[in-house]
Amino acid sequence: MALDLTPLLGPHRNDTVGTMVRGLTGSEILRIAGEIRELVAQGKQVCNLTVGDFSPREFPIPSALGDAIAAALKAGETNYPPSEGMLPLRQAVLRFYERTLGLKYPLESVLITSGARPVIYALFRAVMDPGDTVIYPVPSWNNNHYAYIMGAKLVEVVTDPEHGFMPTVAQLAPHLSEARLLCLCSPLNPTGTMISPEALRDIGQRVVEENRKREAQGRRPLIVMYDHIYWTLTFGQVKHVTPLELVPELAPYTVFVDGISKAFAATGVRVGWGLGPPSIISRMKDVLGHVGAWAPRAEQVAVARFLEDVPATSGFLETMRRRVDERLVALHQGFAAMREAGLPVRSIAPQGAIYLSVQFDLIGKAGLRTNEDIRKLLLEKAGFALVPFQAFGLKDDTGWFRLSVGAVSMEEIKAALPRVEAVLRGAVGRR
Amino acid sequence: MALDLTPLLGPHRNDTVGTMVRGLTGSEILRIAGEIRELVAQGKQVCNLTVGDFSPREFPIPSALGDAIAAALKAGETNYPPSEGMLPLRQAVLRFYERTLGLKYPLESVLITSGARPVIYALFRAVMDPGDTVIYPVPSWNNNHYAYIMGAKLVEVVTDPEHGFMPTVAQLAPHLSEARLLCLCSPLNPTGTMISPEALRDIGQRVVEENRKREAQGRRPLIVMYDHIYWTLTFGQVKHVTPLELVPELAPYTVFVDGISKAFAATGVRVGWGLGPPSIISRMKDVLGHVGAWAPRAEQVAVARFLEDVPATSGFLETMRRRVDERLVALHQGFAAMREAGLPVRSIAPQGAIYLSVQFDLIGKAGLRTNEDIRKLLLEKAGFALVPFQAFGLKDDTGWFRLSVGAVSMEEIKAALPRVEAVLRGAVGRR
Repeated sequence: MALDLTPLLGPHRNDTVGTMVRGLTGSEILRIAGEIRELVAQGKQVCNLTVGDFSPREFPIPSALGDAIAAALKAGETNYPPSEGMLPLRQAVLRFYERTLGLKYPLESVLITSGARPVIYALFRAVMDPGDTVIYPVPSWNNNHYAYIMGAKLVEVVTDPEHGFMPTVAQLAPHLSEARLLCLCSPLNPTGTMISPEALRDIGQRVVEENRKREAQGRRPLIVMYDHIYWTLTFGQVKHVTPLELVPELAPYTVFVDGISKAFAATGVRVGWGLGPPSIISRMKDVLGHVGAWAPRAEQVAVARFLEDVPATSGFLETMRRRVDERLVALHQGFAAMREAGLPVRSIAPQGAIYLSVQFDLIGKAGLRTNEDIRKLLLEKAGFALVPFQAFGLKDDTGWFRLSVGAVSMEEIKAALPRVEAVLRGAVGRR
Repeated sequence: MALDLTPLLGPHRNDTVGTMVRGLTGSEILRIAGEIRELVAQGKQVCNLTVGDFSPREFPIPSALGDAIAAALKAGETNYPPSEGMLPLRQAVLRFYERTLGLKYPLESVLITSGARPVIYALFRAVMDPGDTVIYPVPSWNNNHYAYIMGAKLVEVVTDPEHGFMPTVAQLAPHLSEARLLCLCSPLNPTGTMISPEALRDIGQRVVEENRKREAQGRRPLIVMYDHIYWTLTFGQVKHVTPLELVPELAPYTVFVDGISKAFAATGVRVGWGLGPPSIISRMKDVLGHVGAWAPRAEQVAVARFLEDVPATSGFLETMRRRVDERLVALHQGFAAMREAGLPVRSIAPQGAIYLSVQFDLIGKAGLRTNEDIRKLLLEKAGFALVPFQAFGLKDDTGWFRLSVGAVSMEEIKAALPRVEAVLRGAVGRR
């Protein structure tokens, strides 16, 4: 007879945990996911554009990658990987960066992790002291949570749709002198937009200037996190740029966040990497060694093999790019047609990642007062599920939403657009 | 032409990182591993008993587990797992605990993680505030590092070989009233010993008493971490016990650290779990969600399938147990024979885990003054590589060492013992 622990565990209580975790806030997206599950359970048709993930049916991983993982397991790649990652994978990442991004790093600059999140977490842990200031634009993904966990002071710079929700040097400059960490992301989650080379160069040069000043004063430098986990997914004429190709002097201060999660539709395979100055990377390795956030060994071996197969890698990335693009374009053109027809909606032409920024200009119309009102209307009346920019740190009800296309088919998109149009017509009283 | 970053990155510098990581100390074991690599490169025969890991040649994972991972990948189990873990695995772990440990937890009590380390890290993060006190016996594995990272005050209770290096309630009691977290581990890394039911019951009852007092005073309770990652590996007459079967009232305060890493020789597969009160487990989940220390999805599905196959699981665990035991027994008997022959060595009969505690009573003999002197002598003259208890927090040079058998064959052990005996004879001047 087993000991039944449920009655012994007692009611939920808050006094068993510490101050930091009591202040952690739950994910808005997960809350919405619960609502969607309920509607689907009721038999409703929902075009789910909320999850920053892939449906394996729409976006499988490269089959050669899966086969290589199976082969590595059979070959006994099952014990601890080194805490900096398997040598063949670190070398493969270096060669991948050299041939695709034109950046030639030394071996000590690359760290392999369990997906890309540990890179972000470890970077915050490695460079921030409690009370240090982190600066980042909003909307952006989860920087607020990482800042909170570290006990950091945070400076949120609100961006605008006219700049594709990307920060400008004019917006950032007033805050740089007090900051310890500047977080940039391009292509940006949640907006699907990319920073321009000009804006990135201006910001990068300003950081270098700031650090020259600090060095003269013996002060610790400003570090730049450049999260470009979506960099292989870019569309149209826009080209992905890195701060280092524009401002090479940034090299001692820049850490890249990257991995296979989005490039190879492999969020659940848990292989990510960070690249940067060895003095920071080695400390991130120390932190993650204790956390245990290592990528599984067989997966590391397999990703190394896949990345070294240049035609296979390029071919897969091109297919991914095309399949994400057709979904984003279908949505963007659908909204453009509605706008042509005089309906209050606009979207920003897709540039990168798996996201589209859409504004439903409905605040103050048909009794709708908040983004949440609009979200609920579209979900319940059109089976169209999206996430308001509030989930990414934007406070105001501006009607802007993130649409994520990794888990939907073209058919679902085509079926959903007329439903959205009907709801918009209803909301503005035009049948 | 790629941009060569090496000259741009500049020399190693300490001012790019924060205060906490600058104080992180490197692993003693990794330093020793470097020495061993060098000797092996020189063509020396080394019996490597230093790594707390498995050689896949000696200890492969269950082949059915590898096949199940390959099948799960083919079936598209490649996107994000839920942050609490895949439901089938959480259910499989609950059933495994019920049938093997007699503990019946509710679903909300189990969290799946990327190996077992994230459970420890998240538990420290979830329950400790900076400045809180953590208490643990030494020698023990890495508690000092976790305590340091959290900015905790630490109370180290030095145990003795007469109690198998296990703590007693008398040793712990004076410090319990100030502690926020008590870390226990059995079977213990590094000693290969296990706590007795009597000692564990005494400690558990004292914790319950302490928490009754605190509850009356409105103070936060003392939490117990019970790391039993090696619990499936026990030898001889000794039976593994959990604090909850002895003191059920501990349930609201106890978190188990566990996973497949040691049970299935799968340290690189990265699947671990923690079980405990939902109020703590849910906060650990929040922390690890931001860290990204999730077990890969296909591995989670595969481990669920394997654990539900009761005969396969039992069969594999029994084989593991037998193969670890034969190695430990060979070493223990070898040392017993040397001791019989009057040589200054003793080992503690193997009880659990993959470790043997051995004392080389050589301090003050043949010019040997420290454990480090003994370690170097045995490595260089006998090709016998081991780790001193100093690597596990014991300060004094007592001649005690950890021997780990996961990466050696019976042949290597048999070949090494005469070399050790020869060195001991030499050291005490008996040829």
